Amino acid sequence: MTFSAPSADGWVRAQTTGPGAEYPQVHPDGLVRFQLELATAGDVRVCPGGAPDSGLGAGPLPMTRTDDGVWTVTVGPVPPGLYYYWLEVDGTPVNDPGSRCYTGHGRAVSAIEVPGPADATAWYQLADVPHGDVRTRRHHTTGEHAGWRRSVIYTPPGYDEQPQRRYPVLYLQHGAGEDETGWVDQGRADLILDNLIAAGAAEPMIVVMTDGYAWPRLRRLARSPQRSRTIVDAFEHVLLHDLVPLVDSAYRTVPDAQHRALAGLSMGGRQALDIGLSNTEHFGWVGAFSPPPIEDLDPATSFRGALADPAGLDAALRLLWVGCGTGEARFVEWRDRLHGLLADLGVEHEVFSSEGTAHEWPTWRACLHAFAPLLFR
Amino acid sequence: MTFSAPSADGWVRAQTTGPGAEYPQVHPDGLVRFQLELATAGDVRVCPGGAPDSGLGAGPLPMTRTDDGVWTVTVGPVPPGLYYYWLEVDGTPVNDPGSRCYTGHGRAVSAIEVPGPADATAWYQLADVPHGDVRTRRHHTTGEHAGWRRSVIYTPPGYDEQPQRRYPVLYLQHGAGEDETGWVDQGRADLILDNLIAAGAAEPMIVVMTDGYAWPRLRRLARSPQRSRTIVDAFEHVLLHDLVPLVDSAYRTVPDAQHRALAGLSMGGRQALDIGLSNTEHFGWVGAFSPPPIEDLDPATSFRGALADPAGLDAALRLLWVGCGTGEARFVEWRDRLHGLLADLGVEHEVFSSEGTAHEWPTWRACLHAFAPLLFR
Repeated sequence: MTFSAPSADGWVRAQTTGPGAEYPQVHPDGLVRFQLELATAGDVRVCPGGAPDSGLGAGPLPMTRTDDGVWTVTVGPVPPGLYYYWLEVDGTPVNDPGSRCYTGHGRAVSAIEVPGPADATAWYQLADVPHGDVRTRRHHTTGEHAGWRRSVIYTPPGYDEQPQRRYPVLYLQHGAGEDETGWVDQGRADLILDNLIAAGAAEPMIVVMTDGYAWPRLRRLARSPQRSRTIVDAFEHVLLHDLVPLVDSAYRTVPDAQHRALAGLSMGGRQALDIGLSNTEHFGWVGAFSPPPIEDLDPATSFRGALADPAGLDAALRLLWVGCGTGEARFVEWRDRLHGLLADLGVEHEVFSSEGTAHEWPTWRACLHAFAPLLFR
Repeated sequence: MTFSAPSADGWVRAQTTGPGAEYPQVHPDGLVRFQLELATAGDVRVCPGGAPDSGLGAGPLPMTRTDDGVWTVTVGPVPPGLYYYWLEVDGTPVNDPGSRCYTGHGRAVSAIEVPGPADATAWYQLADVPHGDVRTRRHHTTGEHAGWRRSVIYTPPGYDEQPQRRYPVLYLQHGAGEDETGWVDQGRADLILDNLIAAGAAEPMIVVMTDGYAWPRLRRLARSPQRSRTIVDAFEHVLLHDLVPLVDSAYRTVPDAQHRALAGLSMGGRQALDIGLSNTEHFGWVGAFSPPPIEDLDPATSFRGALADPAGLDAALRLLWVGCGTGEARFVEWRDRLHGLLADLGVEHEVFSSEGTAHEWPTWRACLHAFAPLLFR
């Protein structure tokens, strides 16, 4: 009885490699090796989901065919973290049969977890600390598009053991093409919080994640400014009329704005700014991770007019926080314009940059890790 | 702004169709339509995971190419429930980019949920009843292959609201090539329990599901009788030394054999019989769903000799239950031999048949639905 042990030269299966598969493999120095047995194909490539800025590569990575009909490519070093990708076989996108699937890019998509130096990545690794439970709860929503949804709810370590204690709540949203599973499955929000809380670096908090498309059919509309506004409005209804009341009744929360934060990544960052800044009676803490550059930035109209009374906004908010990766230039440029506008208006806020990461999960893990310690203190 | 509404002739996206995809589609009469745009391929087939007995078909289902390079095939009527499948493109297995992925067949694999008549399938549908939480908990195991694992834990409706109440526990295991996510994602164990409990047809119970391979590398060993025994032994260690103590300390259980059941499907059914019948001081209720025909059936040695003292076994067990589908002949034949042996030995037990279903999830959903109401009463 023998096992497929790690090879002597350090290559091991990735954490995202499927239960029965040997590839993709990763190397401690950040190299990544993709492999596919497909004798009949004429052309196979690895397509980084975050191209052209992806840490995996700027565009499709051609694989080389061996005599045995096995296609392979080695790339890197790649900065640590998780990256979406798929394979293109003779022009057709398919998932890598060797990788686990995640909901991203509007479908089930492959992703690879790239390791890094222990001291640089320990904050999102599974460690010997107390762990919260990640719960999935089904609940019914109201209004025009009433229906069932699933929300993912992190309860911090100790939640079950201290039945009298009440907790603040962070509502944390995914990006376009993702769903309520993204922040745990791709983002490791649970491990990031477990580690921060164990170190005394963040307040124990409940984290609530739900499908930001509000009604599923919105997901399949053609992109347009109207669709973007509709997505924000529909999600606001679900959030304020259904989700917050549910969470405040089913979990031991402190049900006020001082103990309620709203944050999200990309599309979810747009939702956090639009909904959070215009509902400060509900949310005292707002975080936007790589919010998309919107069509205009006008103190009279942006964020539903929330900047029209900057002093009022400033007084109502405990924290306004905007982060992105230095590798996503369009988002940095817009974030810096927002930074300048807020400074001109006298609205206190914080900005954050994740060094060397782009519009991908390494940026958003870093944002959560920087943002969560500031909350509820 | 228009939506892709259900077509006038009744075709709709399957519940398992990915968030951004239009296919696969299903029809209320049980027809299933698969579709893939892949202009360069020369041959595309749908491969039922449960072939040759699958409700989807006995073997690969060739797809037909249209002039637009779209491949399509319509099959059925298919009995309601969930079926694993994948696509074979010019001989290479790939997942359907249109479907969600599940852990089965030792990897991420496509699956399709086929609808059925409301009165015949309501027991596993999402309904307007109280819903339990499905929690994912990380915990550390002990012994030779110590490490972290994730277990999935269903807490019944009311668990959080009644902090003094204690509950019985069903340990419920997946089959070969699956993992701890199978019983919820594919089996709908949570919805089946929600519906039974709401109807007063089952006791409110905690359900615990974990990775039955015990230590992940076992999953990649070549199949052999020794591997099967190793998998049972390793899982017994995790179950008795790690998981049961964790669950009894972290959740409000009644920590005795009268309030603890062990069940599983296929490989998990083998584990339930071997471990359950030889550990009646821990488990008073044992259920095997489609347990695999083992090499021998001998009252002196089978199930680790648990049948050597039939009167003692009979007195210690509250329930011994064995079910399978009428469409899986090898499993029925073995189940019936076991039935005869137990009857000869005077060990009280129950047998169950799921009409017209094979070695697939429709059988195991039906088994859970028949088994759970008998527990803890």
